[in-house]
Amino acid sequence: MTDTPVAHPRTPARPPTGARPRPAAAATTPVAGPPATGPGSDLHLELAAAGGRRAALMAALREAIRSGRLAPGTRLPPYRSLAADLGIARNTAADAYAELAAEGWLTARQGSGTTVADRAEPVAPTRARRSAPSHRPAHDLRQGRPDASSFPRTAWLAAGRRALTAAPNEAFGPGDPQGRRELRVALADYLARARGVRTDPERIVVCSGFAHALRLLFDGPAAALAGPAAGPLAVEAYGLGFHRALLARAGVTTVPLPLDEDGARVEALAEHREVRTALLTPAHQFPTGGPLHAARRAAVVDWARGRGGLVLEDDYDGEFRYDRRPVGAVQGLDPERVIYLGSVSKSLSPALRLGWMVLPEQLVDRVLAAKGEREAWVSALDQLTLAEFIDSGGYDRHVRRTRRRYRDRRDHLVAALAARAPHIGVSGIAAGLHAVLRLAPGTERSVLKAAAYRGLALDGLADYRHPRIGQEAMPATDGLVVGYAAPADHAYQAAVAALCDILPDPL
Amino acid sequence: MTDTPVAHPRTPARPPTGARPRPAAAATTPVAGPPATGPGSDLHLELAAAGGRRAALMAALREAIRSGRLAPGTRLPPYRSLAADLGIARNTAADAYAELAAEGWLTARQGSGTTVADRAEPVAPTRARRSAPSHRPAHDLRQGRPDASSFPRTAWLAAGRRALTAAPNEAFGPGDPQGRRELRVALADYLARARGVRTDPERIVVCSGFAHALRLLFDGPAAALAGPAAGPLAVEAYGLGFHRALLARAGVTTVPLPLDEDGARVEALAEHREVRTALLTPAHQFPTGGPLHAARRAAVVDWARGRGGLVLEDDYDGEFRYDRRPVGAVQGLDPERVIYLGSVSKSLSPALRLGWMVLPEQLVDRVLAAKGEREAWVSALDQLTLAEFIDSGGYDRHVRRTRRRYRDRRDHLVAALAARAPHIGVSGIAAGLHAVLRLAPGTERSVLKAAAYRGLALDGLADYRHPRIGQEAMPATDGLVVGYAAPADHAYQAAVAALCDILPDPL
Repeated sequence: MTDTPVAHPRTPARPPTGARPRPAAAATTPVAGPPATGPGSDLHLELAAAGGRRAALMAALREAIRSGRLAPGTRLPPYRSLAADLGIARNTAADAYAELAAEGWLTARQGSGTTVADRAEPVAPTRARRSAPSHRPAHDLRQGRPDASSFPRTAWLAAGRRALTAAPNEAFGPGDPQGRRELRVALADYLARARGVRTDPERIVVCSGFAHALRLLFDGPAAALAGPAAGPLAVEAYGLGFHRALLARAGVTTVPLPLDEDGARVEALAEHREVRTALLTPAHQFPTGGPLHAARRAAVVDWARGRGGLVLEDDYDGEFRYDRRPVGAVQGLDPERVIYLGSVSKSLSPALRLGWMVLPEQLVDRVLAAKGEREAWVSALDQLTLAEFIDSGGYDRHVRRTRRRYRDRRDHLVAALAARAPHIGVSGIAAGLHAVLRLAPGTERSVLKAAAYRGLALDGLADYRHPRIGQEAMPATDGLVVGYAAPADHAYQAAVAALCDILPDPL
Repeated sequence: MTDTPVAHPRTPARPPTGARPRPAAAATTPVAGPPATGPGSDLHLELAAAGGRRAALMAALREAIRSGRLAPGTRLPPYRSLAADLGIARNTAADAYAELAAEGWLTARQGSGTTVADRAEPVAPTRARRSAPSHRPAHDLRQGRPDASSFPRTAWLAAGRRALTAAPNEAFGPGDPQGRRELRVALADYLARARGVRTDPERIVVCSGFAHALRLLFDGPAAALAGPAAGPLAVEAYGLGFHRALLARAGVTTVPLPLDEDGARVEALAEHREVRTALLTPAHQFPTGGPLHAARRAAVVDWARGRGGLVLEDDYDGEFRYDRRPVGAVQGLDPERVIYLGSVSKSLSPALRLGWMVLPEQLVDRVLAAKGEREAWVSALDQLTLAEFIDSGGYDRHVRRTRRRYRDRRDHLVAALAARAPHIGVSGIAAGLHAVLRLAPGTERSVLKAAAYRGLALDGLADYRHPRIGQEAMPATDGLVVGYAAPADHAYQAAVAALCDILPDPL
């Protein structure tokens, strides 16, 4: 049946008959739908006041069909009658019918008029999933989220318009798995001047973010750093549990390095002869907040050289410095020993899924092989838009504006705590989008309970602690990780007030 | 050193000193750059005629620094002198200096004027990779590529503007790994009326394309269909080698099903008791071009039910039908036994990296777990734009327009072959973006050589043949797979002429 040509190949497509359990029958049996509406009958359509008549009629008919008010098989009035009923031009109604038939909403058949098309029966409704955004917290001070209301919609759209208008046609063809060259050129330039990264565009691989980068390096037998000689990965004693879980699923053992006020104690690497790779957050230890001391920056690079190993530099919020000079990337010390990882997730939006890896030359091909040599992964359109956004200075402007905004928020947080909870120590505030509040030993859990009761979303330090770091190597401390970027401006002061309310009184 | 606060926290950021091998020295040693330009010296800047003066001056300075004409350490003339030289307002020049300092291009220090900032030294240039788009074929008749010049830039940008303007702020926050609900609602609606798919938005998972879907199902220990009971996967005897390679890397054994004019011989599944999953292209066998016969569609679903297995339906070009009614998705026969996979790669552009999986309910959570419950993968902005593009009818219009264009191309190809090579059989032309040309036994390789010599890119059938299908199960045939969508309109006729030139004469 499916091979029989229809009379005229340009007839608008009928809705697919294969959707029915018995397609052959469905194609020949007359539709047993509800009674057809008579010619001229009132469809009770409300046309939107704004916009063109044709578009408004189409939208109203689609909505009536979608909602079930016009059931499959319902015969529509002739377009002339409908046009007269609605006071619109006949051509307009005829065009709307034809277009909806071409889209599969209506069926136009010689002699039997226009009917609502048979649709695939919906399946029984599936239970809603936990991802439903219904239970949002009253106050959101979770770390790692930039203020979603600060996304530069207008500037981004303008950059997108310029980028897509100027793009060569091949930009809409199969993508380069390494990433668009325009973006890699813009990033090489930007990262050199803003982050002290030493690279050229050929060593940059575009990916969808830090988690994608971790997967490309570690997940699966084809991963770039997988293999029998891989060994365990050194990580900081405090870090994101999500990353530890991803690594654990990939079969990577992690070895925690203790932290102090100068960052990760990289000298501890000497105790682990089997470790050849270390993942660090040198610009701003996550989540405790200090930069890696200059001597340790040099030491960890020396360690990597001596052991033939690698440093993975997670530069997740390097753009956000407030009170001191920006700390350049460790990658600049030795581009052949450091993999530099960054993204727009903090600086612009995690919704873009756009990140980058700056790689030692010898690793580029291995990462591309892990990525899939025909798999581009990241929207070329977003890549072109970001390249234009960087080149035109829009990215710098956006970072400067949000940096000012987040600094003001930090100042407000520090001032509010000084006034209302002066006994609470605050650290990690020179940079980034979050602060750490020290709590008295044994109180973290009860404070988090009070926060949850109040509808205040934030995290305790305990969640970030590596499960295998010993008390003797680094004593656990109670504390809160307070992200000050997530709320919209109008909601921020109330969130800080709620935080101050739930903080415990001095002992 | 890095902890010392600078005098005024709002001083524009200096370029990162950590980029230097010896940051402490670099911060205190005077820069030994080229001689400073004296006050009022001519920078030889050419300001663009169009646009604002400030932007033009910034662009000219950036370009001079980027190209090396203004080396690091070069002292710039005071902004007053520069303004006088260029005949622009003093404020304009001062603003340009301040902005470039904030961006890290210039360094402004009290008492020492404005100098070009130290930049991270570039690494030695890396050799260019094979991905360089330099050796494009003279004529491109490769399958699987839509005409990149047909991308609806204006309509897409307009949909993006509407979508981003209307989007709630949370759209710019962390994404839902399942995909934006707006897009899943639009897809459920579109797939029901255009492809006969039975689903609701809760069973759809957005992914970056077919390869991503295959990885989520099969690649790695956390994949949705991985596990000890998984067993081998039945595939069609002809298919994409790229998919076979991806599956092989994931450790999945594939069992080839022979093909005939009615598509895959699914009755052969009965011979393989260990197989519980079959990957098919029912709407349009890839690459041989026929639809799966209605009886076989029913039979393969019965097989899956009987064995407690699954059918994977690769609906890669279901939108493109020319001479017959569209064949609905097999998924409509049993949504709990069929995984339906689609993308915009053929209908719109492979550059978007946007696809979808329609899943049996019991598999949704497993696919989300494989995807990473915090990993969204696909740009939310592109998702919102596509939802708006579908809802506004733009997607239907684009598909109709390109369908007409590709049909005209197919007609031209068929007519040219009838006139110039009537002895060559053509098949698979009722649908899709490619045709199959039958060649005399033993001639495929020499024809492909002639094509390569002529700069004509296309594929032979042999590349698509599964390495483990026997001659007795399905004899190999010589042939060409000719994609008629890839070239731009103006290049298409020449490509077809080149094809006719290299086809062998009748024996």
